[in-house]
Amino acid sequence: MGTAFDDTSRSRQPHRVAIPPAKPFLQTLKSNLKETLFPDDPFRELKKQPSASRKLLLGLQYFIPILEWAPRYTFAFFRADLVAGITIASLAVPQGISYAQLASLPPIVGLYSSFVPPLVYAMLGSSRDVAVGTVAVASLLISTMLGKEVSPVENPKLYFQLAVTATFFAGVFEASLGFLRLGFIVDFLSHATIVGFMSGAATVVCLQQLKGILGLVHFTHETDIVSVMRSIFTQTHQQWRWESGILGCCFLFFLLTTRYFSKRKSYFFWINAMAPLTSVVLGSVLVYFTHAEKHGVQVIGNLKKGLNPLSITDLAFGSPHLMVAIKTGIITGIIALAEGVAVGRSFAQYKNYHIDGNKEMIAFGTMNIVGSLTSCYLTSGPFSRTAVNYNAGCKTAVSNIVMAVAVMFTLLFLTPLFHYTPLVVLSSIIMAAMLGLIDYEAAFHLWKVDKYDFAVCLGAYVGVVFGSVETGLVIAVAISLVRMLLFLARPKTGLLGNIPNSMIYRSMDQYPNAESVPGVMILQIDAPVYFANANYLRERISRWIDEEEDKLKSRGGSSLQFVILDMTSIGNIDTSGISMLEEVKKNTDRKELKLVLANPRSEVIKKLDKSQFIKTIGQEWIYLTVAEAVAACNYMLHTCNPKHVTTAEANGQDSNV
Amino acid sequence: MGTAFDDTSRSRQPHRVAIPPAKPFLQTLKSNLKETLFPDDPFRELKKQPSASRKLLLGLQYFIPILEWAPRYTFAFFRADLVAGITIASLAVPQGISYAQLASLPPIVGLYSSFVPPLVYAMLGSSRDVAVGTVAVASLLISTMLGKEVSPVENPKLYFQLAVTATFFAGVFEASLGFLRLGFIVDFLSHATIVGFMSGAATVVCLQQLKGILGLVHFTHETDIVSVMRSIFTQTHQQWRWESGILGCCFLFFLLTTRYFSKRKSYFFWINAMAPLTSVVLGSVLVYFTHAEKHGVQVIGNLKKGLNPLSITDLAFGSPHLMVAIKTGIITGIIALAEGVAVGRSFAQYKNYHIDGNKEMIAFGTMNIVGSLTSCYLTSGPFSRTAVNYNAGCKTAVSNIVMAVAVMFTLLFLTPLFHYTPLVVLSSIIMAAMLGLIDYEAAFHLWKVDKYDFAVCLGAYVGVVFGSVETGLVIAVAISLVRMLLFLARPKTGLLGNIPNSMIYRSMDQYPNAESVPGVMILQIDAPVYFANANYLRERISRWIDEEEDKLKSRGGSSLQFVILDMTSIGNIDTSGISMLEEVKKNTDRKELKLVLANPRSEVIKKLDKSQFIKTIGQEWIYLTVAEAVAACNYMLHTCNPKHVTTAEANGQDSNV
Repeated sequence: MGTAFDDTSRSRQPHRVAIPPAKPFLQTLKSNLKETLFPDDPFRELKKQPSASRKLLLGLQYFIPILEWAPRYTFAFFRADLVAGITIASLAVPQGISYAQLASLPPIVGLYSSFVPPLVYAMLGSSRDVAVGTVAVASLLISTMLGKEVSPVENPKLYFQLAVTATFFAGVFEASLGFLRLGFIVDFLSHATIVGFMSGAATVVCLQQLKGILGLVHFTHETDIVSVMRSIFTQTHQQWRWESGILGCCFLFFLLTTRYFSKRKSYFFWINAMAPLTSVVLGSVLVYFTHAEKHGVQVIGNLKKGLNPLSITDLAFGSPHLMVAIKTGIITGIIALAEGVAVGRSFAQYKNYHIDGNKEMIAFGTMNIVGSLTSCYLTSGPFSRTAVNYNAGCKTAVSNIVMAVAVMFTLLFLTPLFHYTPLVVLSSIIMAAMLGLIDYEAAFHLWKVDKYDFAVCLGAYVGVVFGSVETGLVIAVAISLVRMLLFLARPKTGLLGNIPNSMIYRSMDQYPNAESVPGVMILQIDAPVYFANANYLRERISRWIDEEEDKLKSRGGSSLQFVILDMTSIGNIDTSGISMLEEVKKNTDRKELKLVLANPRSEVIKKLDKSQFIKTIGQEWIYLTVAEAVAACNYMLHTCNPKHVTTAEANGQDSNV
Repeated sequence: MGTAFDDTSRSRQPHRVAIPPAKPFLQTLKSNLKETLFPDDPFRELKKQPSASRKLLLGLQYFIPILEWAPRYTFAFFRADLVAGITIASLAVPQGISYAQLASLPPIVGLYSSFVPPLVYAMLGSSRDVAVGTVAVASLLISTMLGKEVSPVENPKLYFQLAVTATFFAGVFEASLGFLRLGFIVDFLSHATIVGFMSGAATVVCLQQLKGILGLVHFTHETDIVSVMRSIFTQTHQQWRWESGILGCCFLFFLLTTRYFSKRKSYFFWINAMAPLTSVVLGSVLVYFTHAEKHGVQVIGNLKKGLNPLSITDLAFGSPHLMVAIKTGIITGIIALAEGVAVGRSFAQYKNYHIDGNKEMIAFGTMNIVGSLTSCYLTSGPFSRTAVNYNAGCKTAVSNIVMAVAVMFTLLFLTPLFHYTPLVVLSSIIMAAMLGLIDYEAAFHLWKVDKYDFAVCLGAYVGVVFGSVETGLVIAVAISLVRMLLFLARPKTGLLGNIPNSMIYRSMDQYPNAESVPGVMILQIDAPVYFANANYLRERISRWIDEEEDKLKSRGGSSLQFVILDMTSIGNIDTSGISMLEEVKKNTDRKELKLVLANPRSEVIKKLDKSQFIKTIGQEWIYLTVAEAVAACNYMLHTCNPKHVTTAEANGQDSNV
């Protein structure tokens, strides 16, 4: 095997590792900040423009995307958007009413929330597919978080005020994340977290619907499965209303059947999209003619006619409950945002266009701020409605405008028609929508591919179902962060060996046919060296050396003389890491071993240079590749005793080969 | 350049990337847990032993190190330890009294704390150099954290009870960290954090000493510089006692001078070690003869004779202040631990022996639990005392036993001698010790080598000096964690180029002479791909591709046809990361580019295999090295149009070369 290296070392001089010239501190800081906050370089086009007026126009178009696409809008687009808009309106009305109930708000607030926010989003949003509306999980969260503070039954006025105040702060928080380019915070809700969290929230929401379906009057305010089950089974069976139950089961069956068919054949999709409205109409007609409202089937009752009243005076900035409103706003805001941004991104991928996460956040934030001033509560881009919008063939955000107009029409003229709509139908609609969100297939995929991601998902699910929505979220985010910190705190280290008949060195774990080089130990470290792992690495490296020496001793062959550290995967290092290397160097010196570095990266070599470590180890012991380092070690092994090699000799070797 | 690659591709077949066989889940879990919690494999020796009695002995020796080294103890060792022990006792008595005052505890408690804990540590500790005693920063923390809850002046009994209770919980917390093998939590206090934190705490402690030196009676309970300065300068100058001030300055000058000399010439070290005791003797004699206690120089007063009384009944488990005691215990415990373990490790390095961090934690924890039962407050291994111990030539932990015996002697017979010891001397001793801890040289080194570490250090310092000790700690740990998370959230990406006359591919940023390969873009990602960076990487990779295409278009040369991802530094991947790769693949497909992977690592290739991504991309597009991937791309570029390459053709190419 030795010949292979000798060939190399003879054929050309080893390459030197370059130390990049030091850049001024401020320049480095600027480029780092730019890469952190503006990785997509959003103003690239803007910079190229020479004239100021053109720059202004591009700038306006950047912040208000409708200015960019409206001039190119055609009649063909409008036809498609009209159909899609009416379709999502037929979903928006029953969903709006249902989710408002989930949030313990008056049903009409749900309709208001499907009127103003979609108009704002149509101006500012960069997605062509997102359909704006209220979302189930955030609605439930508002109800549990605010309900602990103020009872929606006893003090509905104050409760409503806190809800719009929370919406206001959610909007401010979302918009600030976008303005401050901190959109990446949303990325910390990983795919696994969202799968578990959504499934858990859907389970919890379904459980809550048992109240409506069983026609119960008294019900727990807690959301965890234990409280809900206790609340249901401690009631005498007289309190369960069988009329309500049967009606609920029928509609649920109807809704699930239509979804099943629309999933199997895409041309059945219209049935699915229209099913909720059909259920509402059927249910209302049934109640109207059978007077079921007198037999235990609760109905919506009177809905006020007219458009959104202003709610600026309802913002409760002076309230003693302000902190709760702010907390609710931030938590529901980030969850609504995560759903909206993820949904927007997924559909943009299908259609192959790009969505700017930070811009979306500004759009969602503005829409909620405006909404909070016009009697709306928290809205986002719910998955179900957006999917219907996409399937109905929407082309641009105009479908949101069409939906808003249709809802406006409903608010102005049709609200009396909902008087007899039974609550149990709304519960069925919510339940059907939620059952679709329990994504056990995704959970199984996680288990198959990545056990740790499955643990995150399970943590979120169990936390939500047995604890509360916030508990689940905190557990999942905590487990995810621990994983990342563990990756850094306990980086993988491993020995490299030579792949036969090549100059390639790879992990001997992954490539069992890789052969170790006699007298040389090649160690690879798989993470940046930071304070969190410096102590661990020092001990682990010294254990590797001890074990290797023991192994060689027990075999009775040649002793260990060189330790090569392959630094390819060390992306960065801090001062604790440099101390660690200094100690490793001292340790190898004591054992009369030579420490050799291979392929230190730009950031690392810069810091090693500044801290004088390069001088300590000797520039001639730093190689560009493992192969060259091994070649040099082999040369030393065969020509002289390395234990007495001086720097001068090493230099000589360097220029000879 | 093309010929270089063709040479390679003709000379040998490309190597295949191995997919390691899937291990059973439980086995992986076990080996991961072992690597995380037992990286040092502490029971390696134990497992080799065949007999049960030998195993028991080794196990006992593992937990009680004195059993291991006592049989080898010699008289020569004892002579050295005796000298060292007496030397540190001469330091322990004045320091013990001073730090107890800093903690607002009776001076005698400081002496108690130098008697029992050193005895316990001598049995259990694995360091040969650590000298056990109370520490300044933890003393100050106890005083500020407990002082907010209970006044040490108005309710000294309850305050003392809370202090021993806090010590008990600190011990329990420290010992549990050790037992649960969670010692790495201490590693999260980075070198930079400790430099800034210690300097800040030293500044704060010095400021507090102005009270003693100026002989002030009324003084603020806050520790931040603003409150202290206001407290000093709002007092009329009549309240400043010039007698006390002059005495304090003289002793401070004396102490600093002796330290200065002992640093320059190591044989002056004895002067430095004896200086505190000398100051105390001189000060007491001076006061005794001049009756200065009647002229504004405060003295210690009566000290109780006798050994530590038991304090089991003082543990205030039923107190309403229990939570504060627990919180104080945990925070002071971890800080004391960090200092003790770091000090132990540093001196072990000098003498070239190994310290087991987790075992040290158990020793420190047990010593504090036992201490809390015998009227001691929190102890650790302070740097100053340990350094004196080391310099005085200690050989084993027997020097701690000698010190404990000397302190016992003091407690039994000498306490009346301290009646006239002026407080101002104690303040000078603390101040002199603290001034040595303000490590501006280390801060300057941090600035030079790593700006971010300097920011951490500065954050800790400013937080401690202008806020409180806890604020500083939280700021520093938060900044440190943000750095690690940013590393993961915003990994470096960069283009690779060919180093001329070689088959080596390296970052074109670091090696400006590296040449890009026509039609091929080689992209390197420098971190594991996790949920936190998956979105960023997707956008960044697509921007790299766009920019590269723009560049090639503007040059009018050949168009981009291959994108090679160098996965060498991707240590791990999660399901969000795999989705990201799938999207990158879709994106390149749409642009009619070929995506090629180079050197995926063991963990990554396993997951890519399980998630079917290997099938999507095609096994034949995964290469062991960038050079082989480039060679294959070049072959394709020169023989056929890659836009119409089918998998079959690619396979053909594979077996031909």
